[in-house]
Amino acid sequence: MTDKLSPEARAEALKALAQTGWEEVQDRDAIQKTFTFGNFVQAFGFMTQSAIWAEKLNHHPEWSNVYKTVEVTLTTHDADGLSELDVRLAKKMDALAQ
Amino acid sequence: MTDKLSPEARAEALKALAQTGWEEVQDRDAIQKTFTFGNFVQAFGFMTQSAIWAEKLNHHPEWSNVYKTVEVTLTTHDADGLSELDVRLAKKMDALAQ
Repeated sequence: MTDKLSPEARAEALKALAQTGWEEVQDRDAIQKTFTFGNFVQAFGFMTQSAIWAEKLNHHPEWSNVYKTVEVTLTTHDADGLSELDVRLAKKMDALAQ
Repeated sequence: MTDKLSPEARAEALKALAQTGWEEVQDRDAIQKTFTFGNFVQAFGFMTQSAIWAEKLNHHPEWSNVYKTVEVTLTTHDADGLSELDVRLAKKMDALAQ
């Protein structure tokens, strides 16, 4: 069981993640970002690295891929909202996309 | 440039693909199937194998993944509808999922 972020921690985390393009999702306590790469191999390479990290963290994204774009949504079902795991995975994905 | 399937070839291909769970998409000339696996590693393993084949065929799926499910949509943008490439990739993905 992972705890939902407190309102203060949530606001602070979202402020930082907004700097790199993460946005709050309408109608869900979740965050979303679209990553765009040069081609499919780069996009799927990013997904592969992210998948291994997701499995290590035991926290998995909801994501879709169309050619060179990857749209990612993060939330914590166990916590019924955003948790520290979403913040960690979001930052990791930002780092992997660089 | 890839040719759109003729009405006869399209009907025949869709009949065969329906046997393995591919369905026509509403409002688009595309096909769709949801693959379900035992866990994330299996689901993403399937995506990885499919991604390599997609790149080899130079024909890429629109797809999304949530934990152990992978939802795939196939269409050929160049042909503005279904082409032989979609049929080939659909059959390949069926084989990889087994």
